[in-house]
Amino acid sequence: MPVRLSSRDPDFAARFEVLLAAKRESAADVEAAVRAILDDVRRRGDSALLDYTERFDRHRPVADALKIGEAEIEEAVAACDRPTLDALAFARDRIEAFHARQRPRDERYEDALGVELGSRWTAVEAVGLYVPGGQASYPSSVLMNAVPAKVAGVPRLVVAVPTPDGVLNPLVLAAARLADVDEIYRVGGAQAVAALAYGTETIQPVAKIVGPGNAYVAAAKRIVFGTVGIDMIAGPSEVLVVADGANDPDWIAADLLAQAEHDSAAQSILVTDDPALADAVEAAVARQLATLPRGEVARASWRDNGAIVVVGDLSEAPPIVDRIAPEHLEIATDDPDSLFSRIRNAGSAFLGRYTPEVIGDYVGGPNHVLPTARSARFSSGLSVLDFVKRTSVLRLGPESLRQLAPAAIALAEAEGLGAHARSVAIRLNR
Amino acid sequence: MPVRLSSRDPDFAARFEVLLAAKRESAADVEAAVRAILDDVRRRGDSALLDYTERFDRHRPVADALKIGEAEIEEAVAACDRPTLDALAFARDRIEAFHARQRPRDERYEDALGVELGSRWTAVEAVGLYVPGGQASYPSSVLMNAVPAKVAGVPRLVVAVPTPDGVLNPLVLAAARLADVDEIYRVGGAQAVAALAYGTETIQPVAKIVGPGNAYVAAAKRIVFGTVGIDMIAGPSEVLVVADGANDPDWIAADLLAQAEHDSAAQSILVTDDPALADAVEAAVARQLATLPRGEVARASWRDNGAIVVVGDLSEAPPIVDRIAPEHLEIATDDPDSLFSRIRNAGSAFLGRYTPEVIGDYVGGPNHVLPTARSARFSSGLSVLDFVKRTSVLRLGPESLRQLAPAAIALAEAEGLGAHARSVAIRLNR
Repeated sequence: MPVRLSSRDPDFAARFEVLLAAKRESAADVEAAVRAILDDVRRRGDSALLDYTERFDRHRPVADALKIGEAEIEEAVAACDRPTLDALAFARDRIEAFHARQRPRDERYEDALGVELGSRWTAVEAVGLYVPGGQASYPSSVLMNAVPAKVAGVPRLVVAVPTPDGVLNPLVLAAARLADVDEIYRVGGAQAVAALAYGTETIQPVAKIVGPGNAYVAAAKRIVFGTVGIDMIAGPSEVLVVADGANDPDWIAADLLAQAEHDSAAQSILVTDDPALADAVEAAVARQLATLPRGEVARASWRDNGAIVVVGDLSEAPPIVDRIAPEHLEIATDDPDSLFSRIRNAGSAFLGRYTPEVIGDYVGGPNHVLPTARSARFSSGLSVLDFVKRTSVLRLGPESLRQLAPAAIALAEAEGLGAHARSVAIRLNR
Repeated sequence: MPVRLSSRDPDFAARFEVLLAAKRESAADVEAAVRAILDDVRRRGDSALLDYTERFDRHRPVADALKIGEAEIEEAVAACDRPTLDALAFARDRIEAFHARQRPRDERYEDALGVELGSRWTAVEAVGLYVPGGQASYPSSVLMNAVPAKVAGVPRLVVAVPTPDGVLNPLVLAAARLADVDEIYRVGGAQAVAALAYGTETIQPVAKIVGPGNAYVAAAKRIVFGTVGIDMIAGPSEVLVVADGANDPDWIAADLLAQAEHDSAAQSILVTDDPALADAVEAAVARQLATLPRGEVARASWRDNGAIVVVGDLSEAPPIVDRIAPEHLEIATDDPDSLFSRIRNAGSAFLGRYTPEVIGDYVGGPNHVLPTARSARFSSGLSVLDFVKRTSVLRLGPESLRQLAPAAIALAEAEGLGAHARSVAIRLNR
């Protein structure tokens, strides 16, 4: 049974704090093992990659070929069924259209003192995208990471994907091809992160690494951060559904379970003003669980991490949502914008009764890589901005320097930085 | 003597790699000590803060008052001299004007399939700004961190600043007031970071912590990351000056020394096509060092980390600059834009002979918190974007859902996620 809270209960505040503080993830301490792998790849390059692949993925690439060649990609794509490929292309187009609007604009202007100012954006020169193997090898995630990088103009986009027992995931290759990925390597785990960060004989290093991964991959990304940029480290997925009494409980139950089936550590929360809906949703969840292929995972998630919060009025929902800062927020009411406008913290919002969060996982257009574990309080989902960086620009002439110099010199002197003051003053004597 | 490289030398590539790989910073391993402090503050709150302040800053606040009150701020500001306050206000206004243009715009639109999409930006609800004590307590840095936060609309901006021996830095308080900081606490070190991240009886927790600090502060920020957001961890400062032979060597020397006086680990690099200028700049540096108040620091920096790269032609400079990805880039030529347009990686650019980098430290307008240690390859300076976050928005109706459903269901099934497919399919039966 998920926990049930009511905002009318005298101990609501205390129980809500417990819900907020609950840790759903226990990170295994793999740091020492990961450091050893990183050092080894740094030292031995390709040989180390091949050895780890043999050890962890139980196969040695034919002719030691780490790179997946054109012919192999062709063959894999040919093996995919047409409707799925069409669906991937449809998703790619929609993700591309949404992200194209995120390209930031350069600017350059002169202010009243004759100072020229500006901001110039450039794409990161090379990006590595880690794609997990096995169960969590999602072609949709390849699109969600690769498309924004290409929209940003990244000239070199490299995928690393483990091939356990030598088996390729054809849909992952198809997604990579649809997204114009430039190179694909059959290597996974911490060794893949090391190769992307430091480079080997075969793999040129990149400047930034993105994409989800297991505890080893996450630890490796943390360690190489600084040498290269990384994206956020994603935790288990979450949905918070705000629903009034007019909803079909089966629809809401289906949405809660879509989140729960990802991972037993996933979290689904219902906030409603209708205790009868709360009961009906719980019953519907129990019914639907019986016929779910991934029922066991979903059942554990709902039992251990699920929650239902009953409020006196939906106007109480915004502060509750803001504290939780959910990765995914559904507002299933007739006028969702009136609630949404009062909410500050959420990774992605799904408004109205016909917008299940799952649409956003695949074909909505917005990114599905989103801040988890309450980090929507301070961070955003993946976007084109994660693949570009800004250089600020300043240009003065003799006259505008004269306007700015006295204040700059005064502050340099107040901070005790004599060479700073001199570097300005020395230009005033001409 | 700084190293001197020439792009004509047969060993140039190898020596350039050595320059790139040189580590200027050896981070002390303070993690265990910092973890103990964080845990203690989390457990004992204000009492722990007061104890650490007594231990590290050698004083106990009067009446245990951690918060710096209005009267104290007034008094401190009254003690500042007028020209410095005016210079701070001038800097504040220019920083504000530049950053105001960085506010991202919300959008909401409907696409051809009738799907409503959008992006909504909101300010981070509460931000903590760490300000170092002692030598590195720079009022200009208070402005550079606080102004963008306030431009972003952060409702609660909190400063934590140590007061060694109970001594306040009046200019830091003046800058905080000029930047509309909401609360100021006299606490520093890892204990301040803990208080901002976890909260105590007196200090409410924030959602993000920014600002420079020593090794303890940096380690504490790394550890609390996840609980709160953090900004980048800044390394020692750097400048790369690209200069042709038409420059006054004294001006270039002054710019190299302005960087070098920050820290013996700072780095100043000159790239020029004129060996005679290289010699003249070296001589000018030696002359100017003799009369610098912080000559010892600057001398060590220039000797240990300085470099001069002589190229055959300035057109060779862009790839060299891109490899180094300097925090600050000066291009002292008549047509700096033609070189700048071919450079991808730099935190901030200073174009022309009359734009010493120091102007950007104080009054140019752009931020002086910039990516160091080659991280301009993948990251940007501090901006309004660091204090806001984006929620993506999706809204479908029965008709647009029908358009998107088949592809979403196909991909959910291809990924083996049955509850995902059901959450879409269940809405098609009405």
